Order: sequence, then structure tokens, then C-alpha cells
Amino acid sequence: MKVIELHSSFGLDQLTLAERPEPTPGPRDILVKMRAAALNYRDLQVVRGDYPQLKLPLIPVSDGAGEVVAIGSDVRRFRVGDQVCPCDVPDWVDGAPTPEVVARRLGGTVDGILAEFVCVPEHAAVRAPAHFTPIEAATLPIAGVTAWHALFALGQLQAGQTVVAQGTGGVSTFALQLALAAGARVIVTSRSDEKLRRLRPLGEMDLVNRAKSDWSAEVLRLTNGLGADQVIDVAGGTNLARSIAATKLGGVVSLVGYLESQRAEFDVTLALRRMVRLHALSVGNRASFEGLVQALEQHQLRLVIDRSFPIAKIRESLEYLSTGQHVGKIVIDFEGAWSGGVGRE
Amino acid sequence: MKVIELHSSFGLDQLTLAERPEPTPGPRDILVKMRAAALNYRDLQVVRGDYPQLKLPLIPVSDGAGEVVAIGSDVRRFRVGDQVCPCDVPDWVDGAPTPEVVARRLGGTVDGILAEFVCVPEHAAVRAPAHFTPIEAATLPIAGVTAWHALFALGQLQAGQTVVAQGTGGVSTFALQLALAAGARVIVTSRSDEKLRRLRPLGEMDLVNRAKSDWSAEVLRLTNGLGADQVIDVAGGTNLARSIAATKLGGVVSLVGYLESQRAEFDVTLALRRMVRLHALSVGNRASFEGLVQALEQHQLRLVIDRSFPIAKIRESLEYLSTGQHVGKIVIDFEGAWSGGVGRE
Amino acid sequence: MKVIELHSSFGLDQLTLAERPEPTPGPRDILVKMRAAALNYRDLQVVRGDYPQLKLPLIPVSDGAGEVVAIGSDVRRFRVGDQVCPCDVPDWVDGAPTPEVVARRLGGTVDGILAEFVCVPEHAAVRAPAHFTPIEAATLPIAGVTAWHALFALGQLQAGQTVVAQGTGGVSTFALQLALAAGARVIVTSRSDEKLRRLRPLGEMDLVNRAKSDWSAEVLRLTNGLGADQVIDVAGGTNLARSIAATKLGGVVSLVGYLESQRAEFDVTLALRRMVRLHALSVGNRASFEGLVQALEQHQLRLVIDRSFPIAKIRESLEYLSTGQHVGKIVIDFEGAWSGGVGRE
Amino acid sequence: MKVIELHSSFGLDQLTLAERPEPTPGPRDILVKMRAAALNYRDLQVVRGDYPQLKLPLIPVSDGAGEVVAIGSDVRRFRVGDQVCPCDVPDWVDGAPTPEVVARRLGGTVDGILAEFVCVPEHAAVRAPAHFTPIEAATLPIAGVTAWHALFALGQLQAGQTVVAQGTGGVSTFALQLALAAGARVIVTSRSDEKLRRLRPLGEMDLVNRAKSDWSAEVLRLTNGLGADQVIDVAGGTNLARSIAATKLGGVVSLVGYLESQRAEFDVTLALRRMVRLHALSVGNRASFEGLVQALEQHQLRLVIDRSFPIAKIRESLEYLSTGQHVGKIVIDFEGAWSGGVGRE
Repeated sequence: MKVIELHSSFGLDQLTLAERPEPTPGPRDILVKMRAAALNYRDLQVVRGDYPQLKLPLIPVSDGAGEVVAIGSDVRRFRVGDQVCPCDVPDWVDGAPTPEVVARRLGGTVDGILAEFVCVPEHAAVRAPAHFTPIEAATLPIAGVTAWHALFALGQLQAGQTVVAQGTGGVSTFALQLALAAGARVIVTSRSDEKLRRLRPLGEMDLVNRAKSDWSAEVLRLTNGLGADQVIDVAGGTNLARSIAATKLGGVVSLVGYLESQRAEFDVTLALRRMVRLHALSVGNRASFEGLVQALEQHQLRLVIDRSFPIAKIRESLEYLSTGQHVGKIVIDFEGAWSGGVGRE
Repeated sequence: MKVIELHSSFGLDQLTLAERPEPTPGPRDILVKMRAAALNYRDLQVVRGDYPQLKLPLIPVSDGAGEVVAIGSDVRRFRVGDQVCPCDVPDWVDGAPTPEVVARRLGGTVDGILAEFVCVPEHAAVRAPAHFTPIEAATLPIAGVTAWHALFALGQLQAGQTVVAQGTGGVSTFALQLALAAGARVIVTSRSDEKLRRLRPLGEMDLVNRAKSDWSAEVLRLTNGLGADQVIDVAGGTNLARSIAATKLGGVVSLVGYLESQRAEFDVTLALRRMVRLHALSVGNRASFEGLVQALEQHQLRLVIDRSFPIAKIRESLEYLSTGQHVGKIVIDFEGAWSGGVGRE
Repeated sequence: MKVIELHSSFGLDQLTLAERPEPTPGPRDILVKMRAAALNYRDLQVVRGDYPQLKLPLIPVSDGAGEVVAIGSDVRRFRVGDQVCPCDVPDWVDGAPTPEVVARRLGGTVDGILAEFVCVPEHAAVRAPAHFTPIEAATLPIAGVTAWHALFALGQLQAGQTVVAQGTGGVSTFALQLALAAGARVIVTSRSDEKLRRLRPLGEMDLVNRAKSDWSAEVLRLTNGLGADQVIDVAGGTNLARSIAATKLGGVVSLVGYLESQRAEFDVTLALRRMVRLHALSVGNRASFEGLVQALEQHQLRLVIDRSFPIAKIRESLEYLSTGQHVGKIVIDFEGAWSGGVGRE
Repeated sequence: MKVIELHSSFGLDQLTLAERPEPTPGPRDILVKMRAAALNYRDLQVVRGDYPQLKLPLIPVSDGAGEVVAIGSDVRRFRVGDQVCPCDVPDWVDGAPTPEVVARRLGGTVDGILAEFVCVPEHAAVRAPAHFTPIEAATLPIAGVTAWHALFALGQLQAGQTVVAQGTGGVSTFALQLALAAGARVIVTSRSDEKLRRLRPLGEMDLVNRAKSDWSAEVLRLTNGLGADQVIDVAGGTNLARSIAATKLGGVVSLVGYLESQRAEFDVTLALRRMVRLHALSVGNRASFEGLVQALEQHQLRLVIDRSFPIAKIRESLEYLSTGQHVGKIVIDFEGAWSGGVGRE
């Protein structure tokens, strides 16, 4: 089968179309014909070799969706023909994380999904939402699951509470859609009026241009000085201090990224006054994935896709991701493109 | 001031219009001019003397709403003019219940709210939803708060989950509206197609006539054999066994009433197979009340009022309650009626 | 390899020594040479055919311990030589149960552990406490894990709280030892002074002979009228009502068995007054198993073994279990006994 | 009655012995004759005027214990003669904090307890452990309650888990004693072998001299590379990064102080890899106070008192606190000392 791999060195220009033997599912495995992938910032780090514990050769990219084309003799969760997503952290089914269950990560410590076929244990996949195209389903494993895990599994969001989403990247756009579906109030911040404008069709929400004002002060103003119940922080750096300032007493900041800076800092006395609960996470478990799918189906939500690339344009897609222009997810369509090579004009 | 009290014996015909001195608020108290009340089945039990720890004379009925007309010198939560509801369990602010915080209950161990003025500590009241009439607000303290406490504080409802509400009484209609607001799927059971029909305007939900089929089997059918995430059981008796059967593995049954029978029974092996979590509750804390108000405002929800009586018809209102014909809440309007006596034609 | 199986019909006298091919571990499996087993009441039900979804031939008994003698190529959790226990519910790793993860149960829907070798996925076993003999370790998978799951995972026991353990069976003796280790106060009830006497060496606790008094009244007396934080109910029937009566406001009853009657009943008004939380469970997940092992090691706890049988006396061991005379666990020692046949004198 | 107050300006030398009228308890208040006080770092900040929202005149110091000498007509929780501690945050009874319940703080936004008599609402006090002297009881309201709230209410500590306590101040010594009582393993870090030596009598624990090695590496070494379940961070600054590094995957860091620096910083990628949950808190609610008392009584724990000063030496006691030499709490004995003035030799 065809795969895209980093063979003997890292770098965007090292992504290569290669041949691998098609895997054979064991008794509790499923074989998935991949249809689509979606990109995360982490994929860029992996391709650049800027991520711990990588070994070559490696098939990159963790998030994708496809169709079950063969199953092992003991498989109970799936049938041939099911549309599924492999789980980004294949062995983290439910509950708390352990070193053992997070050891394997697709497109990181083990091969990812830029392949015609992917073989995973049945416990390591989730049925895609019935109303989703493969491209939409491909966006779920990291961005959707992280948003769900932050808001619901760790944050126990309730109807009527207030959620702040920062920016218009994958986790943030999922967080705002899911929070709205759960009956919460949503405040979104961005540096770009244009990006904020593109979010309007998703529902009623408060939009704050953070280039024009101190966004945390604005959140306090919009919440009668109380602050938000949950803030999804994608930036780290000094932004974390603002996130804490924008959070209500006893509220939750979910730290999910570091777009501003890897070094986060804040004033301890502010954190103590806010009695803040800070959750750092960049993934979630399969139970969160299943909760997410259930909610997406119940609300027939559609996703914010920024732009779709054919598989042959994988390099260009990662370069586009690195520019940060996107609103919502960047996706890769596998249909009819494997023959063309990678990154050739 | 005028009050309606049980003076020296219990019984519907013992409800009497009486005079009491108008209370004076202490430094941390508020004085509330009552505007409306709402009835719960417990009020009927109290008036009949069929409830523990009652002392006479007693002003019955716990749920009401009114306007703050005076405040003590140290009061911070409220201002004169605020629309508020006294809390049914005045001292249960948040967290777990304790014998001490549940010792005082309005219209039970202490006087209730069928009075021109009610004086309570500021910690024992909640601001009414801004878009509510006093009559709507009066319905919240027991039925609304119990539904919220069951679904969210104890049950941690998530968007996309399934809730079963039984019948069309107060707690059940609140539960279905709140569950819909939180993005859950709702299944309602009733013995009457007419009652089910009256719920339709509240949103999209599955309606099951329990007179025509085994409702628990129907819930399983509607949930692909999995059962509901939460079932609100208002009946007790053998219905509890059906509620357990209709609940998903590891799911929650909230037991909030005993319309069928005070004696509940079930098969232990079924409960073990379901790993059911059963929560018995008939009230909730102030934190749940505040969560409820926040959600009602966020969603601009309106309530299902079955019928309104003037305060002079308090006997008739309780008799009507005892017939069980209602869908939603039975309320009492205090405006202009104190002069007319009680229960006279 | 040698196994003990029910070949074509159920019944104690149908337990047969048989030959099966030795299993070969797949890439993520481990092969365990079994050293010991421990009995649970459920094993008796299975052998009698009195349990749902059984298929023949079946190797009965779920709980055991042994040594890893071979591992698959991808195994990370274990090494050859590790002492381990297979998990009773092999696929329930952490978090909430789902139909899928509880579908497989050792010695129930799939073969159990009365075999020279058992092959399980690495995710479905737990390292035995380092200070335990195989016989002690064999007692953990159901009784120990259920006690832990009830007290800690569901009940969130805190130091200084009060736990009631009923009787002297497996779950109850584990519960009392674990509760003591966690700094809780323990009250144990039994019908036999002799059995209570045998518990004394385990630590300081209150002993209540339930044949001589209403045990729930006694618990209330011992707790200044407040009731226990947690009650482990092993009896069902009308005992459940007493368990609820003995529980503090907002406390937890864990219903783990039905020694008195499969039909449990209680007064709903009592349950509502107590705001009881009732958890039905007869197993727990692997996270609870690992928490249990960690606590056993930290406290160097030893277990209450009632009596040990050689594997050849499996019938007698199950008959002894059925008499209910035991205090603590009944165990089976596999050493040197496979050659002798089963149940022959 | 006599009080010690800051009359018209801040500063250690402004502490003055003054006269105030003895308070009269309202219907739900209790009057407490104070017997002892205990110091917290916050008291030093308040006396120096280095704390938000202070108004003069102010009676400083929040933590104390005394005897109920009069009660209001509606008081149910206490009787005359009870030994009690006023709660540091008088209105935070249970559950989550709100701006309203934390608005009043003894010895901060409202008068503290350096007075012959203190009058508080009955809901704002807790019965002292029966086996405690007033001096021991005085140490509980901030340091004991914060340790309990961090470990149990927020951290849900389980038997067998590992807790790291940093240094030998109040919260840390409480945390280590409570964690041991709850059956946890404890690792204590300090810069002083002498201080570590003084902790030995409290129980079996691992002692790490942080002046001699990277304490977080040492914690990892002692936990087989896994890290601790909970770390109590009293330092802030760059120490927070070490606390995160020393915490197991999905574990909890409780940030309770800033002895190193008010500015905390850490690497976001480390926090994400650890999926750390960070809880900032410097107080706890009354439910935690009551849980604490119950555990102290159950285990007949005695406290680590560093040094006792008479009330007349209040200045010297605060100066001693500022030097950071103490192991455990610094306390003030009220007996027979009010006559002597303040700070005179």
C-alpha cells in the first residue's frame, strides 16, 4: 500500500511517497481504508523533528477517518463498512491517563495515518458521526476530543455557564460550538475582526477583538465583573495571566497550547485570589471522543473547515498551517490522489 | 400583616386568614413582600398534618416569589426592589447536606410564605430570573431546584446524553426543559396522550405513553438497547425497577417522588448488572438554584404553568393539586386577594 | 495443558479435569502460569448454570494469580517472571463501564482461570503486591477490587469518616481493612460473636452482633445519631432499608450482594430524608485494582484467608463456600495437584 | 473588652492594646471568649498594610480558638461551654467559593480575633477537636483547613498514593500528618537537615534535602519515575516548574503560597506532557474544617507547635514569623496576658 513517510531525516521536504506491505488485522484488530486526514500543529512539529521520542521511518499525522474494510475474528465494536476514526492516543480508553496508555501516539511514537490502510485494535477507534463526511470526521481526534475533554470531562460544563474560546484554531472552534450546544454562553477573542466575522454563523456569541483592548477586562465587563466559568487558553506565555484574570472565583482555565510562548507565567497572588483550577491537556480519552460524537449527532453540528488539500499537496498543507491564517481545521482529502506523488506541481 | 395559617389543627378546612406582626429584618436579613406562591405535593401533606416534625400554628407552603422591600444594615447580596425567591431549605447554600442545614424548611419545620411579608437571612434567597413574572419565579424553589440538582449537581449531565422524565408534574417538566437547554435528548413518559400533546411546544422530544406499553422497553428501543443516561423517577413502587431497567450501564436514576407507592422495590441482580447509581432527593441547595436561574436566563426559558388561583382560593388550589390533573405547576397569585378571606365563594 | 471445565452440562459434579492446547500469546498478550485461585459466590452460580449468557464447554472461576512465563513482542506492562492477577473484567481499564468493556468476564462469558496456563492481553492483568503469596494475590480480582471501587472510586472515602461492613465475607473483610488503612472508622456487623472475634486482630473497630439488636439503630447510636458515611450492603432484601437508615444524610450505600434476598425494598420517604446515594456494583475496573495493590503494599496488609484447598478438591471448596461458614476468602492452591483428578478421594 | 488593633496606621509598631464594647450576640450568633491564636504569613502582610481592601481600625489575626460563653435564641449548632474555632472565611460553608462568601475574612476585610471576645454567626464556627488544647485548636482555621481542602476536597487523596510536602511551615506539616493518617506515602523536602530531623517523630516518611539535590528528580527517583500523586507547592516562582515535574501524569499540584516568588513560571510543554491539574488555594470551606476535625479526633493527632508567645508579645511573635525559622505553627496564648500591654518588655 501507499504511505507518506519521513524516511531517514526530518523536514517538510523529506515527506516521501513510499510503499509498505498492507497490514493484516489480528483477532481484535480492524483494518481501515483511510479517506481523509486533518492537521494539527503537532504534526508540523513532528515533521520538523521537533518532538520527543521520534523514530524513523515514520508515517506522520494522527487525525483521520476511513472505512472499516476488514475485521479480526473477535472484533465486537465494529463491522465492515463502518466509518471510523482511529484514536490519537490508541490505548487511553477512559478515566485518568497513565504513562502506559499514553506511550503510543499516532504519528508520534508510532506510525500515523497518512496511509492507504491503517490497522488498529478495535478498542482504539471510534465510530464517526453518521452525518459527517470523512473530511469532517478527520478533524475530531485531537481538536474535537481535546475541546470535549476540557469542557466536559475535566470542566463539567453546565448549561448557562460562560466559556471563553481564544482565537479561531481547531480546539477553539470546537470548544465554542460544543459550549453553545451545551447551552452555555460563549465569548470568543481574536486579533482579527475578519476571523471573528467568520464565526458569526455558528450561533449567538460575544466577540472580542483582543488587538483593540485587554480581552480579560472585556470578559469581566461582559460577565458583570465575575469572570467566565471556563477559559480555554491556547497561548501560554503572559496570556495565561490574562486567562486567570478572566476566570471566575473557583473557575477553570484549560491550558491547551502555547501559541504565544512555551514559557507561561502568572502572579501567584492573583491565582490564589481566583482559587483557579488550571488543567493542562492536549488530548483526551476515547470516552470523551464518544461523548463528542454523541453530541455532534444529537445537534447535527457541522464543522468549520478552513481549507481542503489533496493528499499530494501534504507539504503545502503543512506550510499553510504554519502561517496561522486558518479559521477552523485544515484537512487532507485522500480520494484519487495517491498516484500523484507528494508535493510535485 | 395578613397570613394564611393552620392555627390549632391540620386539614384543608383549617386554613385560616390571620394577622401577624410584620417582621423587622436583622442586620443580615431581607424583608420580602410576597407576590406569588406555587404548590408542591408536600404542601398538601403538611396541610393534612401528614409530615414529620410539624408544630402549630404554622404558615404553610414553601415556594414563592416577591420583592425586597427592606434590607438589614450588613446585607450585600440584595437591594430594595430586587425580585427574589426565598430558598425552600434556607441554610443549605452549597455542597453536601448536613442535618443542621436541612433542619429548617419553609412551610414545614418553620413558617412558609403564605404571608404578605417574609423575612429571611440574605443567604437564604436567590434573585429571580430577570425575564420572569413573580408567578413564574414562584415555581422554582422546589421543583426547579430539584430537577437541576438531580440532572447537574449529582448527575453531571452532558450535551448529547439522554434523559427520561416521567409524567408531567413540576419536577418532570423542569427536568425536560433543562435537559433540552443543556443539549440532551429527552424522552417523556405519561399515561395520557393529551398530557404528552401539551408538552410538544417545549421542544423536540420522544413521547412514550406508558399506558400502552412497557415504558422501560420503549426507552431501550429508542436508545439502541443501551438505556438512558439519567432517569428521573417520580413514582417509587415497582416503577423503580423499570427505571433501573431503562438506565444505561453505570447510569443514574434520580428518585424524587413516590406517586405510585412509598414502598420501592427492585431486583438486586438487575441493579448489579446495570451498576446503577441511585440518588434520592426532594430538594437541592442554593448553588443549584443559582445555576438554574442562570440557565433559565441564558435560554430565556418560560415555564409550564398549569393554572393560577388567587390567594383566596388556596383550599381549592390544594384540592386541585390532589387530583393530579395538572401539567406543570399550580400557582397562587397574591395580588389584590388578601382582603377576601380564604376559600369562601 | 490441564484445565478444569464444565464440559457438556452444569453442576458441581460436572467439574472435570480435561486437556486443552496451551495458548500462544499474540503480540500484546501475556501467558501466565497459574499458581492459585480464590472463590466467589458467583463461581458457585456459574458452576450450577445459574448465571446469564453461559456457554459450554467453560473453564470456571475468575480470580487467580500466577507468573508471567511468556510475553508477546509488543508487551510493555510486564516481563517474564512477574507475579500477576488476570482482571475479572478484562477490558474495563478505567472510567465508567460500557456494555462493550463488560461483555467479557472470566469464568463467565469467557473461560476462567482453572487452568495450568492463561493467556490474556497485557491490558487485562495487574502486577500482584510484591509481599503477597500467589494465594493471597488470588483473592484480589473480585472481592478486593469491588471493595476498593465502592469505597474509593465511587465513594471517595476520606480519613476520619465511618464505614459499615456487613458480615465477614470477602468484600466485607477487604472493605474493613482498606477503610482502616485509609484512616476511617469501621463498624462491622455479623450474626456471630465468634466471627466478630476473629476480626479483632485486624485493627480497632466497633463490632455489632446483628442477631442481638437492630444493627442500624446500633450504628446510629455509635455515630451520635448521624449515621455512617458509607455502608457496604451485601444482603439486599429488607436489609437495604436498614442500610439506608444507618447512613448519614447524603451518605453512600454500596449494594454489592444479595445474601438475604434478591428482592430489595425500602421506604422512599426514608431514602428521600436521607438523600441517600446508592451504588450497585459487583466488580470494579483495573484502575481500582491498581489503587488497591498500591495501598496493600504501602500498608503491608495481609489478607484474611479462611481456608485453602488443593486444586483437586475444587468441588469440596465450592460446597464449603455454599455453606457460608467462612471468614475471609476461600482459596485454591494449584501446586502439585493437577495430576490427581478432581474431587476424587 | 480588650483588643489588639491597628488604630490609624499600619506597621508592627502600630499594634495597640485598646478597649472596645463587648459584642452582644444576635439570635443566630455565638459569643466566644478567645483563649489562643495562631499566626499565618498573611497576618504579617495585614499588619504591614500589604494586603488588599483593608480598613482601619482593624483587629488583626484570623486564627484562634475559645469557649462559647453566650448564644443567641435560635442557635442550634453550639452550647455554652463548647470549645470552638471561628472560621477564617466565615460565610464559606461548603461547595465552591463565590465572591459573596469570600467577601468577609477575619483579620482582613473584617475584624480578626485578637480580642477578649469574638461574636460570630453560628454557621461561622466549628467545634474544636475534643482532645485539643485551645492553643492546638487555634492552629487549624487556615493552615489545617487549607491542607485538608487541597488534599481531600480538591485532590481526593486515596490510601497508598504519594504526597509531597515542601518545607516545614504550617500547611506543609498539616499536609504531611493528614496524608499519613489517610494511609498515603509522604515525601517532605526542606533546605535544612535539622528541620527534617524534627519531623521524624510524626511518622514514616521520605525526607529530601533540597539544598543538596534537585528535589523533583529525587521525588521521581523515589517513585520509580512516576512522580507523586499530589504536590503541595508553598513557593511559587520557578519552584512551580519543579512541582509540575515531580507530579505524576494527571496528578495534582496544589499551589498554596509564594515563599520563593510571587511570579510563578513553568514550561507549557512540560505541563501538557504531565496533564497536570493545578489548584490555587489559600483557604478552604467549613466542610473541610469539619472533615479535618473528624480526622484529627479519629487519629488523636497532636500538632507541631513551634513556639508559643503570650498575647503581650504579639509584635515579637510576628517578627519571629517573618524570620522563617519555625517548624510547624507559632501560637499566642491569651491566658492572663491582656493586662500587660503589647510589646513591652
